[in-house]
Amino acid sequence: MIKINTKDEYFMEIAIQEAIKGEDSVLPNPRVGAVIVSKGKIISKGFHQFFGGPHAEVYALDKINNKMKDAVLYITLEPCSHSGKTGPCTDLITFPMISKVVMGSLDPNPLVNGNSIKILNGRGITTKVGVLEKEVKKINRHFFTFYEKKRPYVIIKYATSLDGYISKSIGKSTVITGKESKKSVHKLRARCDGILVGRKTVQIDDPDLSSHGLGNNPRIVILGDKEKLNSNLKVFSKDPIFYSFLDTCKNSDSKNLEKESLFNNIAPLLSKLYHEGMQSLLVEGGGETITSFLMSGLFDEIHAYIAPKIFGSGVPLFTIGTKMDNLNLIVNSFTKFENDVRIVYKLDQ
Amino acid sequence: MIKINTKDEYFMEIAIQEAIKGEDSVLPNPRVGAVIVSKGKIISKGFHQFFGGPHAEVYALDKINNKMKDAVLYITLEPCSHSGKTGPCTDLITFPMISKVVMGSLDPNPLVNGNSIKILNGRGITTKVGVLEKEVKKINRHFFTFYEKKRPYVIIKYATSLDGYISKSIGKSTVITGKESKKSVHKLRARCDGILVGRKTVQIDDPDLSSHGLGNNPRIVILGDKEKLNSNLKVFSKDPIFYSFLDTCKNSDSKNLEKESLFNNIAPLLSKLYHEGMQSLLVEGGGETITSFLMSGLFDEIHAYIAPKIFGSGVPLFTIGTKMDNLNLIVNSFTKFENDVRIVYKLDQ
Repeated sequence: MIKINTKDEYFMEIAIQEAIKGEDSVLPNPRVGAVIVSKGKIISKGFHQFFGGPHAEVYALDKINNKMKDAVLYITLEPCSHSGKTGPCTDLITFPMISKVVMGSLDPNPLVNGNSIKILNGRGITTKVGVLEKEVKKINRHFFTFYEKKRPYVIIKYATSLDGYISKSIGKSTVITGKESKKSVHKLRARCDGILVGRKTVQIDDPDLSSHGLGNNPRIVILGDKEKLNSNLKVFSKDPIFYSFLDTCKNSDSKNLEKESLFNNIAPLLSKLYHEGMQSLLVEGGGETITSFLMSGLFDEIHAYIAPKIFGSGVPLFTIGTKMDNLNLIVNSFTKFENDVRIVYKLDQ
Repeated sequence: MIKINTKDEYFMEIAIQEAIKGEDSVLPNPRVGAVIVSKGKIISKGFHQFFGGPHAEVYALDKINNKMKDAVLYITLEPCSHSGKTGPCTDLITFPMISKVVMGSLDPNPLVNGNSIKILNGRGITTKVGVLEKEVKKINRHFFTFYEKKRPYVIIKYATSLDGYISKSIGKSTVITGKESKKSVHKLRARCDGILVGRKTVQIDDPDLSSHGLGNNPRIVILGDKEKLNSNLKVFSKDPIFYSFLDTCKNSDSKNLEKESLFNNIAPLLSKLYHEGMQSLLVEGGGETITSFLMSGLFDEIHAYIAPKIFGSGVPLFTIGTKMDNLNLIVNSFTKFENDVRIVYKLDQ
């Protein structure tokens, strides 16, 4: 529950409720909601409904009479001031019809960031920024992470037995979770721009990596050399992005050369994906890939699936030697899929 | 939610609601509820309130006029017919005041089992047994397991890192879960008659094994030889029960002599504890002890605590080589304690 203390927060919370109606259909656009208030009463609402469609403020402004004066526009995100798929929304916000604009957050996109404030102020419209900002960022965490951290929002997903194994033996894949768990993963894939696996996983599993008809298919990213894989594997028909390791350990004496190399490659890989415009990345494994992301600290969520099985031995989730006591993980949610459980952790930031 | 189909089930459900008011204060007595119905209306209710105190039917019968005729007594458990801490309840159930007794279940205690039915029938009172029996057994699962399976109800409790380790290194104990998790374990201990650990755990941890003031302290049971422990350890001041292994593998060629021996000792150990009158046993580890209980199949619940930490290596929860894909575990509940999670599994029987 959001704690509401002020009138502005009250109306912003309603704008947030509007925004979340947008669901996944707006991706990779942010979800935005708008509320217009006149004399303390809401006279119009709107939200961004689908990718490339009219923005939230267009819907809200369309419904009011332009002879009106001194209305306040509450909007979760700074209105756009550039022409993209639609024209600039700032053009529609005119004085004295709207005399004040209250925003949840500035648009982190450098094409907008703060520009709209200047335009609106220049027109005699007062502005206020940062009302329920944390909550506004939360509903568009992929979008904000992308612009603020210059990398995709990273979700690590794995499945283990009760004793922490991801497979019964090296070089073979093991069915761990049930049908319902798998369906939830397919839904998650549909909400991500990219899906990443290590080369070994492709080699062992020949995975499909699609959303299985439950939405868009994410772009496949493979960590490792293309040349080491058989071109008959499924992924090759799906235009994957290959990311070959930089040789970051050339002068190192370390015995764990490849592992360290992998870990040092996460930041440049994410930078590359940022420049490709990828806002969200699902990391599905295997063990070395997951370990590398965890060690790099460059991730936002962990979706841990735990099946009621005991393997006793097998391939560990985390590469031997990785000790991380202070991951600062917060339990965000828990869901039961048949007798598997999914724990969603978020980083406490 | 219990599914109610008949009038008898309707009143029995109300008797169950009465019974569960008894909470832990009645242990090791069963929780029992009673409802008296006259002309289709509830005229009295009662429940067993504390160990050794008056039984549920005493409370319910006390509130009605003994000139009444043809009332029906709904009671979750067969009334007692023997003198224990209180006199036999059958003496209080007289015809024609009560003309019918509807019971959830027979009392599994051989001192009662079915005897009360005979006594009541001989008095001209009709009886019906088995209404919502499954639910009635569920609220007294320790009690029913004890009499029906002739062993304590066994709860296995453990705590692991995300990658399935119970300690960072052999011979040392590791703090895994936080304060709130520990408190929940102390509450659980207060609800169990016994608490069991292996000899090595006593040696390494010198544990307190008490409820830390949150209720009764369970009786301590140690799996292993007394002679191998230093008599200065805390448990020695608490009159523990030691259970030395039977040498079940004398003629075996097995390399895992001790492990097999441990596993083969679970049934005789539980039989011994049954004869000591122990209705419920909490098994707290370590790894070999837990593995043995799991392999024996002689357990009822698993309380798995998972902390958001990664050890990378350490002492595995399950002894290497133990593969159990079909544990038939059902997720019963999930609770978050700070950022630890507890999953309670029950065996699907």
